[in-house]
Amino acid sequence: MKRVYLDRIAATPLHPEALAAMLPFLKESFGNPQSLHRDGQAVLEATEEARERVAALIGASAPEIVFTASGSEANNLALKGLALASRAKGTHLVVSAVEHLSVLNAVKGLEKFGFSATVVPVDGEGLVDPAAVEKVLTPRTTVVSVMLANSEVGTIEPVAEIAALCKGRNVLVHTDAVAAAGSLPVDVRALGVDALSLAGDQFYGPKGAAALFLRKGTRVLPLIDGGVQEGGRRGGTENVAGIVGFGRAAEIARAELAGRAARAAALRDRLIDGVLGTYGHVILTGPRARRLPHHASFCIRFVEGEALLLSLDMKGISVSSGSACSSKSLKASHVLLAMGLDHELAQGSLVFSLLADTTAEDIDYVIASLGPIIDRLRAMSPTYTTFLKESLP
Amino acid sequence: MKRVYLDRIAATPLHPEALAAMLPFLKESFGNPQSLHRDGQAVLEATEEARERVAALIGASAPEIVFTASGSEANNLALKGLALASRAKGTHLVVSAVEHLSVLNAVKGLEKFGFSATVVPVDGEGLVDPAAVEKVLTPRTTVVSVMLANSEVGTIEPVAEIAALCKGRNVLVHTDAVAAAGSLPVDVRALGVDALSLAGDQFYGPKGAAALFLRKGTRVLPLIDGGVQEGGRRGGTENVAGIVGFGRAAEIARAELAGRAARAAALRDRLIDGVLGTYGHVILTGPRARRLPHHASFCIRFVEGEALLLSLDMKGISVSSGSACSSKSLKASHVLLAMGLDHELAQGSLVFSLLADTTAEDIDYVIASLGPIIDRLRAMSPTYTTFLKESLP
Repeated sequence: MKRVYLDRIAATPLHPEALAAMLPFLKESFGNPQSLHRDGQAVLEATEEARERVAALIGASAPEIVFTASGSEANNLALKGLALASRAKGTHLVVSAVEHLSVLNAVKGLEKFGFSATVVPVDGEGLVDPAAVEKVLTPRTTVVSVMLANSEVGTIEPVAEIAALCKGRNVLVHTDAVAAAGSLPVDVRALGVDALSLAGDQFYGPKGAAALFLRKGTRVLPLIDGGVQEGGRRGGTENVAGIVGFGRAAEIARAELAGRAARAAALRDRLIDGVLGTYGHVILTGPRARRLPHHASFCIRFVEGEALLLSLDMKGISVSSGSACSSKSLKASHVLLAMGLDHELAQGSLVFSLLADTTAEDIDYVIASLGPIIDRLRAMSPTYTTFLKESLP
Repeated sequence: MKRVYLDRIAATPLHPEALAAMLPFLKESFGNPQSLHRDGQAVLEATEEARERVAALIGASAPEIVFTASGSEANNLALKGLALASRAKGTHLVVSAVEHLSVLNAVKGLEKFGFSATVVPVDGEGLVDPAAVEKVLTPRTTVVSVMLANSEVGTIEPVAEIAALCKGRNVLVHTDAVAAAGSLPVDVRALGVDALSLAGDQFYGPKGAAALFLRKGTRVLPLIDGGVQEGGRRGGTENVAGIVGFGRAAEIARAELAGRAARAAALRDRLIDGVLGTYGHVILTGPRARRLPHHASFCIRFVEGEALLLSLDMKGISVSSGSACSSKSLKASHVLLAMGLDHELAQGSLVFSLLADTTAEDIDYVIASLGPIIDRLRAMSPTYTTFLKESLP
């Protein structure tokens, strides 16, 4: 059976060149980079080269990169580490309503320890209004965290504008760029942020290797205390092979970013046009244009995303319904609810995220497969039957 | 040049069968285990099989295993996660003086937030006295953490006895078994502990995959908040390949543990006898018998461990001077100082840790190489010159 993988937001395949870069560190070069002998030093060179490459992808300098094991860890280190290090100044945080659960739940964790947070709303396209962020800043606000792009609805947020408003107010700005980095041009200086999370597994690097950019001079309390690794900002033996693969993936992403994005955007638009033009009671979630180039998301009324997802899987098509991290909780997405969608519509969420090798043929196969599935699921849906009865004259 | 790697405490090579188990998850099986489609589900099966294997190595059940990215992360999750979850009961912790920096520094981190800790001393061999632990328990003590074996001096601690004394007092017992698991038989039920840290890269698994055992029903606050991964105890996309390799390494270690240990212990004793019998002003650190089977550690008076290590490296021999995590801090080891060694002697620390394929020939090469190095370094040492002058009639 034909397999079409359109779930890049959940996982990308590992780039063969990233794997090739990793293999020596899974074989003969097994040293610990903290060891002073040559087995350690050879490995250290490789992790530091990877640090340069990851830094280059986002316009940072290498010492500003703290390697972590996941985007979620980077987000937790940012939120908790910055908030705890700044607690002498204040205990108020600001986040948007559409942040990833690792940001929202890190904030909930902090609330148990005397911190408070204001959650800034979004509009119907998932966009944060920079003025709304500015309005809630207080003299005790220490950290603002607004994501660069949303993995569920694709929305690209006005992070540079938000950072500009925070400048001069002694407020640290973090952005979760896990969904954006490697797919959109990202420059930490142009954004004006103090901290930025990214993850290699979102752009053909290995799982288990991610990073937090921390602007030089930014104080952070480690989540993981230990030895001298990562400049004392994150203890634990480094995942050397993962870091090396992450670095190579960052290097490739930097070189291929523009081409990949243009190609993906054309296919994304083909998918959006195809779905919206072919099927009724379907809405696009997130903006039409201001969205991730590889990302198309919909809500399909009268069906459940879960059932859609499993039915598409039977046709060989892998997609998400909301974020992978919350896929098993079976709750309506907090992102869609924050955008004002009703619960029922939010249940019918479907997220297509395209790989670099996705073809027009794949897209057409998906569009064609979707119709019979929607029809069959709607035929079984009591709410659809009710709707039809009520609509009939 | 001959290369002899005797720095297992810093890093082990990856077992070829562990690598073989990992490769499919670095190639075609790239899904996210949280995805509901078949790309995700196939991967989920593999991580859950790995969880069974890791659990089996330590006599635990699979749901009691929380995968982490390092032993340090597991230790931090144990100390911070248990202490924070138990803070309604109390804020007093007990650790030994020879714990790994990830434990000691996690405790220091907690002390900034109202927790207090008692550090229990050790004897000249690095042993913790269970009665000394019992003596410092208070009604507000919530967590006791004593390691199972020390990576710098090899000492095996009486953890079962300590856990037995804590039983019935509503005190959680954690043990850092990073240096022990995979090398010594470890059974969480026999030990009677509530939490135990282990790391695959200590027994031929990949770097970046480790675990915390948490006895069923043990409450923990996550370090990394996020999605539903690891039963809500640790957010972040799973390092699938790493976890699979860790599982395979655990399975192999379980099968080969007894044979490896017997073989290593014989070579270890050959090394200890050879070094102590050949060179003067050398002491064994840690106990003669109650130590890790692959571990021989010494302090060599009148020379610096750093210089010894680099000189041995020139002869193709890789060893540690203290723990890898603190190797670059150039401080005398807190472990050796806690054992009562003076600063000068503690500076001459040398740790040999044997691999499964270390040979008697390797050991003899090390013993023979050590002599000229010690002689040369001592000839350059002002303290040795002073000593000689004072010793002469």
